[in-house]
Amino acid sequence: MDEFELIRRYFARSGRDPSIVLGIGDDGAIVRPDPDRELVMVMDTMVEDVHYPAGLDASDIGYRAVAVNLSDIAAMGARPRWMTLALTLAGEDAAWLDGFSRGLFEAADEFSMALIGGDTTRGDQTVITVQICGDVPPSNALRRSGAKPGDDIYVTGSPGDAAAGLALWQGNNLRNEHQRQLLRRFARPVPRVALAGELAPHATAAIDVSDGLFADIEKLLVASGAGGVIEIDDLPLSAALLAVQGRESAIELALAGGDDYEIVFTAQNTRTGDIAELSKRYAVQVTKIGTVTRGNALKCQRAGREIAYRHAGYRHFAGAADD
Amino acid sequence: MDEFELIRRYFARSGRDPSIVLGIGDDGAIVRPDPDRELVMVMDTMVEDVHYPAGLDASDIGYRAVAVNLSDIAAMGARPRWMTLALTLAGEDAAWLDGFSRGLFEAADEFSMALIGGDTTRGDQTVITVQICGDVPPSNALRRSGAKPGDDIYVTGSPGDAAAGLALWQGNNLRNEHQRQLLRRFARPVPRVALAGELAPHATAAIDVSDGLFADIEKLLVASGAGGVIEIDDLPLSAALLAVQGRESAIELALAGGDDYEIVFTAQNTRTGDIAELSKRYAVQVTKIGTVTRGNALKCQRAGREIAYRHAGYRHFAGAADD
Repeated sequence: MDEFELIRRYFARSGRDPSIVLGIGDDGAIVRPDPDRELVMVMDTMVEDVHYPAGLDASDIGYRAVAVNLSDIAAMGARPRWMTLALTLAGEDAAWLDGFSRGLFEAADEFSMALIGGDTTRGDQTVITVQICGDVPPSNALRRSGAKPGDDIYVTGSPGDAAAGLALWQGNNLRNEHQRQLLRRFARPVPRVALAGELAPHATAAIDVSDGLFADIEKLLVASGAGGVIEIDDLPLSAALLAVQGRESAIELALAGGDDYEIVFTAQNTRTGDIAELSKRYAVQVTKIGTVTRGNALKCQRAGREIAYRHAGYRHFAGAADD
Repeated sequence: MDEFELIRRYFARSGRDPSIVLGIGDDGAIVRPDPDRELVMVMDTMVEDVHYPAGLDASDIGYRAVAVNLSDIAAMGARPRWMTLALTLAGEDAAWLDGFSRGLFEAADEFSMALIGGDTTRGDQTVITVQICGDVPPSNALRRSGAKPGDDIYVTGSPGDAAAGLALWQGNNLRNEHQRQLLRRFARPVPRVALAGELAPHATAAIDVSDGLFADIEKLLVASGAGGVIEIDDLPLSAALLAVQGRESAIELALAGGDDYEIVFTAQNTRTGDIAELSKRYAVQVTKIGTVTRGNALKCQRAGREIAYRHAGYRHFAGAADD
């Protein structure tokens, strides 16, 4: 099977998106952007055995490759539009490609996004790079840099689940529903595109959680030139995570686990009602977990006391951090 | 050196491009497109030891990674605007990264294009994916599909040089200026962006030559639903290629060699004068090498006689074809 046959069989689909003037099959794709919007470009790579275990279900790998990029689009408050895919494969495996492309299109369809082009190549291991171009009304994009002392710090969903799920998969511990639910949080992260797309009037800064809650909040605070406090007892730990790991281990995973692809954002404390309303409208758990402070340190607090926390890095795969 | 330090040291540069609202450093980049233009998206991957030899000069690898994508932008008749880079590295090599980023920015600067984002990861081998977003006035993009029987077939530059240069590098045969000139054609391909950007009123179809002249003309003709004839004696063989390889081997390399990153285009025969004028204005050799015919076969002809030609594939690296 040569590249052209591979693309035809697994990746070329006829779409009905009127913004696409020319899709897969030429030297490039042609799209027609909305004239009154800015573009947001994100790009994330997943390397086999670095960012995901090679034996993970192929459709989950395909879904996840798209979802982690959609999470960046969400963190910018943007709407996903067009996707390009660079797929480096070690060999030809029709079953894998079938599953991978199925998962990829599941994620793309769920977010009304088209695959418009890319490149397939051979290499020693599977490397998957997805680039998404989204759009946003001018000046409406969320950035990491706008948090101010006094702002509340929020997180969507329940951090820690994905890291626990990956560890369970690796330990071949998927005997009960809680365990399988945690794996699903790793394999099929839910990008918070719809909710985050409405955050612009309320949020002062945002970032997606890929490297771990603590590390990513730290990045947001560095970009904002501020410090912060995380209230450990306010961390939204899922019932599944608590059941499988117990509270202390769950807290550690929530802070340092990575791979959550949830959104952290900050907002003035006058916005509490608006944010509760958005949480309800999109049926996405949104939890206040801390406060932006002066200074430049991120601290953790429990029952009113500062506790020592060093993000030693609970990461199974020692890859470079995702952006 | 973590990812952030690596990006800061080698890839983050402050630019003055007013179309860039937000560059490297957030979850995504924000750009402001021209409201009256369509966007053209291209993406090409280079895998170490598949698409280039690992020992090639790092600055050449960086330059080439950008240039092969600019060649796709040229083949679409577009103007390059913004670039994203996914870089998977097997290890940390400061000298390599220094050279690679230098070459990458040389190519980007030459074509007034900014690096706005991307991702760096660890893997078993170097994998470089570049995505470029360009723009073009509505309906002005060149496609593969518009060639009509009777059209002339043109090629820019001198095909075959790059494949010869790569073979010389591999054989450690770089003793004279001709040999070094041929290697340079592999290491630093010249994307024909300026000339191709003016082809829209004249050309009926275009493609860039990455897999080999014969194979790529064939792709253009398949997309156009036509056949064609290549006049072997009209192939523009460079003095360097003839000196190093002799005529028969030069012809074979020109037809099948690959890695040329020249542009093949077709035009009605009433356009001869316009095309000669463009060739002169941009100081780019443009040569008529054949004719589009009815049918669906691409043939070669020499001294009025059809000659057998099978593109057996003169490819040192047996990677999947580039798009």
